[in-house]
This record gives sequence, structure tokens and C-alpha cells, in this order.
Amino acid sequence: MNRRDEATRLDSHDPLRAMRDAFALPQDRVYLDGNSLGALPRCVSERVRAVVDQQWGRDLITSWNVHGWVNLPLSVGEKIAPLIGAAPGQVVCCDSISVNLFKLLATALGLRPSRRVVLTCAGDFPTDAYMGQGLHSLLGAERCEMRAVGVGELADALDETVAVLMMTEVDFRSGRRHDMRELTAAAHACGALVLWDLAHSAGALPVDLDDCGVDMAVGCGYKFLNGGPGAPAFLYLAQRHHNQVTQPLSGWFGHAAPFAFDPDYRAAPGISAYQAGTPGVIGMQALDAALDLFTGLEPASLRRKSLALTGFFMEGVAADPALAAMEVLTPTEEARRGSQVSLRHPEAHAIAQCLIAAGVIVDFRDPDIVRFGFAPLYNSFTDAAIALQCLSTVLSAGAYANERYRQRAQVT
Amino acid sequence: MNRRDEATRLDSHDPLRAMRDAFALPQDRVYLDGNSLGALPRCVSERVRAVVDQQWGRDLITSWNVHGWVNLPLSVGEKIAPLIGAAPGQVVCCDSISVNLFKLLATALGLRPSRRVVLTCAGDFPTDAYMGQGLHSLLGAERCEMRAVGVGELADALDETVAVLMMTEVDFRSGRRHDMRELTAAAHACGALVLWDLAHSAGALPVDLDDCGVDMAVGCGYKFLNGGPGAPAFLYLAQRHHNQVTQPLSGWFGHAAPFAFDPDYRAAPGISAYQAGTPGVIGMQALDAALDLFTGLEPASLRRKSLALTGFFMEGVAADPALAAMEVLTPTEEARRGSQVSLRHPEAHAIAQCLIAAGVIVDFRDPDIVRFGFAPLYNSFTDAAIALQCLSTVLSAGAYANERYRQRAQVT
Repeated sequence: MNRRDEATRLDSHDPLRAMRDAFALPQDRVYLDGNSLGALPRCVSERVRAVVDQQWGRDLITSWNVHGWVNLPLSVGEKIAPLIGAAPGQVVCCDSISVNLFKLLATALGLRPSRRVVLTCAGDFPTDAYMGQGLHSLLGAERCEMRAVGVGELADALDETVAVLMMTEVDFRSGRRHDMRELTAAAHACGALVLWDLAHSAGALPVDLDDCGVDMAVGCGYKFLNGGPGAPAFLYLAQRHHNQVTQPLSGWFGHAAPFAFDPDYRAAPGISAYQAGTPGVIGMQALDAALDLFTGLEPASLRRKSLALTGFFMEGVAADPALAAMEVLTPTEEARRGSQVSLRHPEAHAIAQCLIAAGVIVDFRDPDIVRFGFAPLYNSFTDAAIALQCLSTVLSAGAYANERYRQRAQVT
Repeated sequence: MNRRDEATRLDSHDPLRAMRDAFALPQDRVYLDGNSLGALPRCVSERVRAVVDQQWGRDLITSWNVHGWVNLPLSVGEKIAPLIGAAPGQVVCCDSISVNLFKLLATALGLRPSRRVVLTCAGDFPTDAYMGQGLHSLLGAERCEMRAVGVGELADALDETVAVLMMTEVDFRSGRRHDMRELTAAAHACGALVLWDLAHSAGALPVDLDDCGVDMAVGCGYKFLNGGPGAPAFLYLAQRHHNQVTQPLSGWFGHAAPFAFDPDYRAAPGISAYQAGTPGVIGMQALDAALDLFTGLEPASLRRKSLALTGFFMEGVAADPALAAMEVLTPTEEARRGSQVSLRHPEAHAIAQCLIAAGVIVDFRDPDIVRFGFAPLYNSFTDAAIALQCLSTVLSAGAYANERYRQRAQVT
């Protein structure tokens, strides 16, 4: 059976097949960049229209109560919680990953006052380190020191100076997945806290924050959760750490009584204190609607589909002699794999441009990586087969050598 | 001529009259809460629909470049700049007022390293003080001390310990407007910086940041700029302070080369460095569309209309014996007045509820204030006349004494 036929067969047996219809995917393209920006769920269009025209336009200021705007950060947080293995009361939706990292890193230093090191893994998405660097620049080296080491050096680097280990579960370049349980235990063994960035995890694979004993986590709404461009992020803090220290971005939405207009800040109990300013209602409502697609789905079923898609794609790469020059960066071991496949080639940028021009939307990461993201809710095996075929053609024909694809444009 | 006829006459001579049609106002209500949530501009409905369905849904990830998403924080900032008297290159749209205050207060302490006091005016909107308290809790009293004094004590409190004077131009309770030029000069005379909160100014009255020599400012998109619920905020930093210190929320969007994924933070030049995480595109596009309504309008024309509306309303209150029990908190002197009228009464909450039930949307501020906000782009003199009539009826009939209006609900 050829690969397209095999894909058709796999699609016909896919228990999540019907979910694809819930998305407004362009008909003429194969979209494999849901790890950067999730596709548009149809229900989001409807929700946003209702929020703008009815809730804002007609009900105006009363919507803060009538339509529950004021509770959105907590209610959306509770919708995310089961996707990341968090019991109620520990997740809030607000701000961006960057801003939420600042709150949590400061909290970590507050919870471990005799330690000052934020340990990170070199090569993680840089905004995580940047926010730590910002905290360092504010507090000085005596209270906050950033230390980045390679994955293999983490065990040695975990010592009694480390306040918090900050890790991204799935590496944005390679698609490699770290062992959350093992690294969390290692950090705890030396008395450190752990903070996991779930940007490439939430919505694509099951995360067991409570079960792994994780202390803190952040994640974004616009990748596998399909909340829309720049959707608000989320933040998790384990219950045992609540009400211990005040997070520094102590805005009025995190106040115990925001509408009392007290002159003094008094933190709301629990996770609510991690809110800062007024929530962006339209964006948060879009995310709220997108999350409804996960209702009734087992995270394990998403994982099965995701692994099947990436596995099918990786097998296809390995089997095609035309693709021999592409190095597969993503681990073949399933437990170590996220929901993308990253291929390395010196002409990666030109290859990505050729694929995009041919209607296969992938992305490029400097200096030499093409990323193929597989979103288990809407990508099909046929998508993967078309991408393989297109990639094979691009490599065989050497089309990527065409100069017009070699010009580097700003690509997000 | 009675007041309704006078209102009709004034409306017919209002040069901004046609602007009202640009808004989707409910027909059966008078909306006087644009100082809390601006009404929906019709063009925003269309823009949001296009952003969701076409830009996100169809063009997907390419929209970051094709539709200029990546530049929105700066391009929207440039649209706000002329409304607040800022030359290009000094305003960026991002995050919330609260988060932006944190960036600027930290910057102020960095620019004045030998000083540690953040001086504020008691009674200003509390999130401003809360953010300062958060910075204080992080840095300790030796590097950051919050000091709040009454308006009359500001002159005495400005001494050589003050790093920055943080003031709200228009008081959210009383509608009193401070003298930006005078207070800025006073702060500068003692070597302090000034940070102005323009939440109740931008879009309602001309602000002359550059001309007054202001150092820093923040403001919000969802009041008189009509950007929608929880619209992103903006931030101003005078050019002379650029590239001096690193703001602590140093996320990837403020990096000099965000897509190079450098391990080390390197601030973008100029105001761009005040971005933190990925911008919320849908909300920012809504604000961008709403700002188009200000194109070609002189801020001075908005101010004339605003003063005429609040003046008309205050005259009506003064002339009606039924309203004698309501204390007018808003200054009658035009230069001291924002774009709202605040009335005090021991039964303010019940009175506000009666007005809302009768279709006049106002709001209540603890413990005893009813606020009537006048948005010069869409409120009419007839709106003001109807509100006066309704208020008179409520006070005359004592309807507010009805117990069902006395129950306090959470009101934003």
C-alpha cells in the first residue's frame, strides 16, 4: 500500500476524525504550524461575534457581571486545569507567558529565601531566560542568579544554591520532550522548586502536574489550545504554595476586594492573587470557546493521535531516499517526543519557503530547522502524507536552490 | 426654553454630532458609563470579524507578517501618540496599565538610583499604588518606598528622596483634573521624575505630554478610546530616557532581534523595549480600529464638546431643587474638570440602581458616589437632559428607598 492510501486508511479509523470539521481550515493548504498558531475553531468565530456585538455592544458595562467577564481568568483557568493534570483552584488565565514567568520566578525566590539560582536548560525558548534576566537585573546578583546548562549537566548543576529549576517540557526547536517526573524529583531532592513551561504541551499531550508534584507552570493559549493569536496565557501554582508570598505584579484584579478600592494591597486568597490588571475580555472569550472542543476528550486520546501522526511522518522520512540529507532531530522514542517533527538541513530556510509556496505551511527556526507541527485535534494522516510527498519533491528537484526562496524574510 | 429643547438645540449645533452614528449604541438606553467601558464602534465589529475569520482563519501564521501583527504594539502606539501630545517613537501599546506601571516605576528607580520614594496622591485609582507596593515588596524599603499624601501636601512632600511622582490626571472618583504642567514642573524642580496615569484622559481631553515635559505615562484602551473590554493599555516614555536602563519585564517581544532566539536578552532600541510577551492580537486589532474614529479630529474639539456636556449637566443639577441633596464633587472650573460628573449622596448606590433600571446607565463608586461619564464622541446633550430628568424623578419620588435597590451587588 502506498503512503497516501495508508494515510486514508488511518484517517478512516481515527476516533478524533470528526474534530477536524470543528475547525475553519483553508481547503487549499495543509496546515502544520499549529505548534506556533493553532487553527481557528468555528465556535470561536461565533463566540467572538456574540461577545463584541451583544455582550459589549448591547449589554455594555453590565456584562462584567451578567456575562461573567470578571470571573473569566478563574473560569478559563478551571477549563485548562484538567488538560494539565491540575485539581481545581490552582490555574488562572492571564497576561502572557513572559509576564507570568516573572510572577512565578519572584514567588520561587520568595519561597526559597536562602537560595538565589534560577537554573535553566540552555536552548529553551529564550523568553523564559530573558524574564529571569530581568528579575536578576532588578534584584542584583546576590538575590537572583541565572544559570543555564546543557541537558546532560542538569543533575550536576542541581545543588543547594538552586531556588528553582525552570524547564520547557517540549523543546521548541527539536520537539524533544523532557521527563517531567524525573526532573521534578531531582530538583526536589536538592530542595529546589520546579517551574515547567508547557507552551508546546498543553492540548497536545497529557500533563500530570499534580501527580508529578510540580510546583509551578506556565503555558500559552495560542498553540495547541487554539485560542487565537496572542491568546492569554495561563499559570499554575500548586496549592501548597498558596498564600505564602506576595507576587510582585500585584494589580487590582489580584486584590482580595478589587471593587472596594482600598488604598493598600491585600492579596486575594489562592491562585486569584496571580492576576494583575484588567483581563483582555475578547481574547479570553476566544480561548474559552476554543477550550470547549476539549470537553469530553481524554488527554490520552490526543496523545495517541499525536504520536501516531508524528510516527507516521518520521517513518515516511526514514523510508524516502530523497530525504536522506535531512537529519531528524525529534526523538523516535515516543516518551521523549512532543507533537512536532523537526528536520535539520543546511538549506532549511529555502526548503521551508518551498513547502509554504506549495501549500504546506510549516515553519523555520534559525539556523537550519524546518518544523512540522501536528495538532491532534485537526491534522490528519493525509496531511502528513501530502507533506511527505511535497518535501520529497522539493528535495529531489532541488527547487530550494532557487534564489528567490533563499532571501530571508522575517518569519515568526 | 426647557432643558430637553435646549438639548435638542445644542445637539443640532454639535460639530461632532455625526460621530454618534459610528457607534452601535442600544436604542432604549442612555449610556453614561464610557469612562468605565467605551461603547462599541461599528468599525470594530467589522475589524474583529475580518481578523478572526480571514487573518487568523485563512491566512493563519503568515498574518504575523502579512497583516502586520508583529508591529501592532508600535503601530497602535503611534495612533495613540497624537491624542496624548507625544511625538513619534515614544508610545507602545501592550499589556495592562498595572503591568506597564511596574515597568515604568522600575525604570524610574533605575534613572534616579540615589532616590527611593514613589510619591503618590492618596485616593488615586488603587492599582497604581498596588503596583508600587509590589515593587516595594520585591526590592525592600531601602530601594523603594511608597508614600501617599493628600493633594494639598504634594508640594511639601516633594523632596530629594523622591524618585518619581505618580499621579492620575483625572481622579476616578471626583472627576477632578490635576494641573499636569504645574505638577510636572514641581516634581522636576526637586529632581524627581513624573509618571502620569491617563486612564480618564486619553480620548476625552487633549494631553500635552511632550510639551509639559512629562517623563512617563500610562493609559488604558477601554475607556474613552473605545477599544473594548480589557483592551490593551499603552505606555509612554520620553525619548530622553530611552536606552538608559533595562525594564525588568524583559520578554522576547522587547528583544532587539526576537526571532534570532539569542540566549541573552538584548533590549530593542527605544520604546520597543517596553514590550514583554506576545501581543494579544484580537484585542489590539479592536483598539486599532476604534482609534480610526479619532483620525482627523482635533483633541481640542473633543474637549469643547466634553466641557459643554458636563457643564450642561452640572447646570441642570444646580437648577433643580429636587437635586439639592446631591453634592457635586466635580469642579465647576473647566480647567479642573475631566469628562465625568460625580454626585455624592448617602443613598448613592440605590440611586444608581434606580437610574440603571430606568435605562440611564451610570455607575456607583463606594461608598457614596454616582458617576455620570460623558464621552464626547457619542454622548449627546439629549442624553444629558434625559439623565437629569430621570435623576430628578428618582430623587423626587424617593424611589431609591425601595429595598430591592438597596441590596449591594458586585458592580464593576
